Amino acid sequence: MTTIPRTVTLTFEPTGTTVPAVPGTTFLKAAHAGGVDITATCGGRGRCTSCRIKVLKGTVPPPTIMDKVQLGDDQVREGFRLACQTQVLEAATVQPAPPISEGTFQILSCAHDMRKDSRLRLDSGVQKVFVKAKCPTEEHHQTSDAEEILRQVPGVSHDLELDLLRRIPALLREANGELTVTTFYSKVLDIEAGDATAHKYGMAFDIGTTSIVGSLLDLDTGAQLAAVSGLNPQAVYGGDLMSRIAFAQFNPAALKKLQTRVLAAVNGHIKEATEQAGVDPRQIYKLVFVGNTCMHHIFLGIDPTHVGLAPYAPSVRAPLEFSARELLLRTNPSARVFFLPIVAGFVGADTMGVVLATRVYEGPVIRVAVDIGTNGEVVMGSRRGLMACSAPAGPALEGAQIKHGMRGAAGAIDRVTITEDVRYHTIGDLPSLGICGSGLIDALAQMLEAGVLDRSGLIRLEERDHLPPALRDRIVERNGERQFILVRAEESGSGEEIVITQQDIRQVQLAKGAIYSGLLMLQKVMGVPDDRIGELMLAGGFGNYLNIESAKRIGLLPDLPTERITYAGNAAALGAQMAVLSETERHRATALARKIEHVSLAARPDFQEVFVEAICFPGFAPEVTTAEVLGG
Amino acid sequence: MTTIPRTVTLTFEPTGTTVPAVPGTTFLKAAHAGGVDITATCGGRGRCTSCRIKVLKGTVPPPTIMDKVQLGDDQVREGFRLACQTQVLEAATVQPAPPISEGTFQILSCAHDMRKDSRLRLDSGVQKVFVKAKCPTEEHHQTSDAEEILRQVPGVSHDLELDLLRRIPALLREANGELTVTTFYSKVLDIEAGDATAHKYGMAFDIGTTSIVGSLLDLDTGAQLAAVSGLNPQAVYGGDLMSRIAFAQFNPAALKKLQTRVLAAVNGHIKEATEQAGVDPRQIYKLVFVGNTCMHHIFLGIDPTHVGLAPYAPSVRAPLEFSARELLLRTNPSARVFFLPIVAGFVGADTMGVVLATRVYEGPVIRVAVDIGTNGEVVMGSRRGLMACSAPAGPALEGAQIKHGMRGAAGAIDRVTITEDVRYHTIGDLPSLGICGSGLIDALAQMLEAGVLDRSGLIRLEERDHLPPALRDRIVERNGERQFILVRAEESGSGEEIVITQQDIRQVQLAKGAIYSGLLMLQKVMGVPDDRIGELMLAGGFGNYLNIESAKRIGLLPDLPTERITYAGNAAALGAQMAVLSETERHRATALARKIEHVSLAARPDFQEVFVEAICFPGFAPEVTTAEVLGG
Repeated sequence: MTTIPRTVTLTFEPTGTTVPAVPGTTFLKAAHAGGVDITATCGGRGRCTSCRIKVLKGTVPPPTIMDKVQLGDDQVREGFRLACQTQVLEAATVQPAPPISEGTFQILSCAHDMRKDSRLRLDSGVQKVFVKAKCPTEEHHQTSDAEEILRQVPGVSHDLELDLLRRIPALLREANGELTVTTFYSKVLDIEAGDATAHKYGMAFDIGTTSIVGSLLDLDTGAQLAAVSGLNPQAVYGGDLMSRIAFAQFNPAALKKLQTRVLAAVNGHIKEATEQAGVDPRQIYKLVFVGNTCMHHIFLGIDPTHVGLAPYAPSVRAPLEFSARELLLRTNPSARVFFLPIVAGFVGADTMGVVLATRVYEGPVIRVAVDIGTNGEVVMGSRRGLMACSAPAGPALEGAQIKHGMRGAAGAIDRVTITEDVRYHTIGDLPSLGICGSGLIDALAQMLEAGVLDRSGLIRLEERDHLPPALRDRIVERNGERQFILVRAEESGSGEEIVITQQDIRQVQLAKGAIYSGLLMLQKVMGVPDDRIGELMLAGGFGNYLNIESAKRIGLLPDLPTERITYAGNAAALGAQMAVLSETERHRATALARKIEHVSLAARPDFQEVFVEAICFPGFAPEVTTAEVLGG
Repeated sequence: MTTIPRTVTLTFEPTGTTVPAVPGTTFLKAAHAGGVDITATCGGRGRCTSCRIKVLKGTVPPPTIMDKVQLGDDQVREGFRLACQTQVLEAATVQPAPPISEGTFQILSCAHDMRKDSRLRLDSGVQKVFVKAKCPTEEHHQTSDAEEILRQVPGVSHDLELDLLRRIPALLREANGELTVTTFYSKVLDIEAGDATAHKYGMAFDIGTTSIVGSLLDLDTGAQLAAVSGLNPQAVYGGDLMSRIAFAQFNPAALKKLQTRVLAAVNGHIKEATEQAGVDPRQIYKLVFVGNTCMHHIFLGIDPTHVGLAPYAPSVRAPLEFSARELLLRTNPSARVFFLPIVAGFVGADTMGVVLATRVYEGPVIRVAVDIGTNGEVVMGSRRGLMACSAPAGPALEGAQIKHGMRGAAGAIDRVTITEDVRYHTIGDLPSLGICGSGLIDALAQMLEAGVLDRSGLIRLEERDHLPPALRDRIVERNGERQFILVRAEESGSGEEIVITQQDIRQVQLAKGAIYSGLLMLQKVMGVPDDRIGELMLAGGFGNYLNIESAKRIGLLPDLPTERITYAGNAAALGAQMAVLSETERHRATALARKIEHVSLAARPDFQEVFVEAICFPGFAPEVTTAEVLGG
C-alpha cells in the first residue's frame, strides 16, 4: 500500500516554467515529466555533469556523494546539484546550467577528502612538450633525428620504442620539425606532429565481478570528461566470482574466453568514452586498473584457480606496469597501464582504490572503510597502521539466492516501512517486481522492529497473534517454511505475491554476519571498541543505497552514532582515478600495500565464535554484547 | 706460372699415421688428403675449436688471429693450434685434441688484448639462481606465488612480464617449488623448473652489408659454443649499401622485405648455432648486435633513406635495448637485445665493436683501427680521446667493378709476385678464375715495383721495352685501353685471360685513396705524423688477408714499420661478443660513443687536396710527402 503523495511546484528559470512534483522524486524526473528539457547524458546515474542545476530558492537535501564527486566542493557550496541525484523536498526554483566543460577545473576526490576541502595533487607523470626541431645538417653532422627532436626535452631517454623509432624520420621532416613529445618520467611515449600539448588524457577502470566502471580524465585539469560503465560480460560464464574461477579452473581456453570478454568490454568503454568526449584514444597515455584479485588475474590472463582455493593466494601482489600494446588496449600503444597492488587473496587492487579514496591511512583517529559486496572488504586503522580483511558475504545482499530477490533495477523494492502494516517504495516508482538488497535490509530491520522476527531471526509464527491484524495475516507457513508476505499478489507488478522466506532471512543473516564479523575481528585484533571508531565509511555501489539505520538495526553495521557513518561512493573506482591523476597517489598505493596487515578470518581460531555472534540480530535481548565478543 | 711444390711428411699421433703435405697447405687439408679424420665443424674457417691440434715436433708459423681468438693465449703458448689455420712449413708431428668443451674456460678477446694477456671481465649481467619455494600456506597468508619464488632472489622487481605472470601458478606447483630464476639486473627474464643454473647463453651478431656473423657464447665461461655465418640475404635487393637504401627509399613495403630477410637469416643462425651446440634457444638471455648504420636501421625497420642522403644522419644514435619478443627473435622472448650505439652516419655500431675489441681508447700512445670494407672506417686516438671518420671506398677491394675481379673464394688469385715474370697463388690451389682484393693489391704493388706502372698508376705501354721480355709481352692495348695480362688463357681455369686493366687500377686507386685519405685526414686533424702512430690495427675480414707490405707499397696504408701494423680479426663481431659477455664493455661502448669525435670528410674543405694525394702511389718520386699533406 504506497502512500498517496501530495505535490509541490518547481519553477525552472530562466523561462519560469512551472511543473508539479511529488516530494521524493528527483528534479530530473520532475523536469522531464513536466516537459522541461534537461540533458542526462549518463542516463541519470550521477556519472556526468550534463544535468547540473543551480538551486535559486527553496530547500534541497544535502549533496549526495555523486554531487560531490561530479561537481566538487566549490560548486556544491554555491548551490549547484545534479538534477538526477537531488530529491524534491518542497517547492523550489532552480536553473539548469550547462555541463562542466573540459576546460573547467574539476578535482576528483572522495567524500572524506572533499569534506576537508583538500585537493588532489595533479601529477600524472605524463608530460607534453612542444619542440621546434631542425633536421640534421652537414655543419652539425654528429647527430641523429632523435637527438634533434629530444634536445629540447632534457633528461629523457633516447632508447625509444620500436614503433616510435620507425616513425621518427618521416615525423621530423613532414611536420617541419614542429612536434609534441609526450613523456612519462624519462620514457618517451609518443611524438606527434604540431602542438598537441593541450591533449593529455588518462583512464581509470574498476573491473568488478558484476560491472565495469570506466572514467576518462583530463590529466591537466583533473576533469572527468566521460564516465562509462556496463555489466561485466564474463557473467555469461558465471554470475559470481567462484563460478567464474570454477569455469576457468585449469582450463586455459576457458580463461582465454573470460579474458577476451573483459578486454573487449574495456576496449568498448574506451571507444565509448573517447567518442562521448571527442577525444583521440591515441592521446590516452596512462591507465590505472583496480579490481578484485580474481578479476585482476583474469584480465591479465593469469590462471585464477589458486585464488579460489585455500589459502586463496594471488599469483602476484606487486603493483604491475604494462604498455597498452602488450595488453591490447586501444589507447596510445605506449600508454602506461598500471594495476594497483593486491594486499592478499580477497583484499585486492580494488581495496587499494578504497584505501586511496577514503584516505583511511590519514590522521590519528581510527577509521574504517567497509566495501559491501559479494565479498565484503574491511580496512581499519589510522596513520599508525592499517589492517584489512575480507569476508565472503555471498550474493544475498545483491538480491541473489533470495526467493523474490533482484538487482537494484526499476521495479525493485528498495525501501520498506512496517508499522501497522507494510509500506514500500520501488525504484522508478513502478509496480513492484521483487526486492533488492537495500529493500531486504530495510524489510528485516522493520520486521525486527515490528516484532515479526525474534532476535534469532525466526519469523514469529506462533506468536503472530500479538501483532497488528494486517501484519498477522502476512505471516504464513507453506510447505513447512515460514514466510512473510511483503506484497500481495493483487498489488504486485507481476501479479504474484512477493514474500520473504525464513530461508531468505537466514541468507541475509549469513551475509551481514560475514561482513560484520570481518569488522568485529579487526576491532578485536586491533583492540578497538565501537566508541573508538571515529568514522565508518561505506564504499561500493551498494553502500550508497543502504539505509544506515536499518543496517545498524540488523547488525550489518555496528551501532555507531549515525553522523559517524558516511558514504564514500564507488571508492575503488575513485581511488583508481586518483592514481591516474596523481603519481603521488599511485606511489602511495604501492607503499601502503606493503604495510597493510591482512587478517585471515579463516585462519583465526576465534573466528567461529565472532561469526556466530555476528549473524544474530542485536538489541532485543542484550545477553551477548559486542564487548564480550571483543574479549572485554 | 705456379711454383711446383716439394712435399714434407706430417706425423699424426697417437696413431703415428704419416701423410705427405705441400708446404703452405694447412694441417687440416693435409690430414684430410691423407685420410686422417679431423673434425672441422665450422668448415675450416677458424670459427670453432673442433680441429684443435697440439704441435709436438717441428716448426709452425706464429699463431693467427683465429688461433688466438679460439684457443686463447695460454693454449697457444702450450703449442695448440687450429689445424685449419696453421700452414705447414716443414715436417712436423702433431696430435689432434678434442675441441674445447663448454666447461673449459675460454676468454674471447682481441689480438691487441691477448698480446697483453689481459682478461675480459665476465659480467654479462645475466644471473641464474636456483630456489626452493613453498606454495603459500594458510599460516603465512599474506603472500603470493611470485613472492614465494622471488623471496630468495633479493633486489629483484616483482613487476613481471605478462607471459611470466601467466606461467607462474603452474610452474610453482608442478616443479614442487624447485625453480631457477634468471635475472638481468633487477628484471626477471625467466623462471624454469628445476636447477637450470648451468645454462646461460648469449649471442653476438655482426650484421654486415655482405655477410652476417653470429656467435653463441656461454655467459658463465665466456666460451664460444658455436660460430655461424652466411651472406646477408638482402643482397638480392642490392649488393651494396646504397643500392639497398635506394630499394627501401620511401617505400615501407620494400623496407619490410629487407627487414624480413635479415630477421629470417638471424633466426636461422640462432637455430643453427643452438643446434650445433646442443643449446636450448630459450636459454639465450642476452644478444648484442652491431652493424653499420644502414644495416642497424633496416634490421629495426627504420627507414634508412636519410642515412643515404647528405648529411647521412642516422635516425637514432643512442644505444638501444629491446626484448627478443618485440624484435621477433627466436630466443628467450624476454632476452635483452642490445644495439651498440652509432657514432655518426657511416661510423656505425660496427665501429663501436671495433673500438671495444681493439681497445684503441686505452693507453697513452696514439693507435689507429682501420676497418677496410666498402666503407672504410678509421678510428684514431688514445686514452686522451678518439676521432673517427668514414671513407667511401667502394667495392673494388672486394673484387667488384674489376674486370676479372671476384670475391676471395676458391680459384681467386690472392697472392702475386712479379720479378722476371708473374707468379701467383690461388685460394685452394685451384686453377685461377679471377682476382680478389688481396691479389689486386699484391698485383699493383708488384707492378709498381717491377716498373710496369708509373707512380701515377699508368701502365707503361710506351716504356715497356725497358722491362724483362716476359713482362713486356704482358702489356697490351686493346680498344684503346691499356691492360696487363696476369694469367694467359692457356693457364687459367676458365680458359680465358685474366687481365688487369688501366680502369681496374684506377678503381683500386680510388678505393685505397679513400681509405688512406680518411687516415690522413685524422692524422691532420689530430696533428699526428706517421712516426707517432704506435700501432695500426687492421680490422674486418678483408684486413686479415691483406699483404701488409703490398698495402704499404700502393699507399693503402702508411709506411709504418711492419711490426706496428697488426691484424685485429673481425673486430666488429669481437666487440659485440665482448659486450655480450661483459656489461663493463657494453657500458663502455655507451660512454665512448658520446666522446668519439666524428670528422666528416665531405664537410672538410681540405679533403679534396688530401684525397688527390692519397690516390697516388707513394715512394717513386717523393715530390709530395705525407708531411706536406699534413701541412707540415
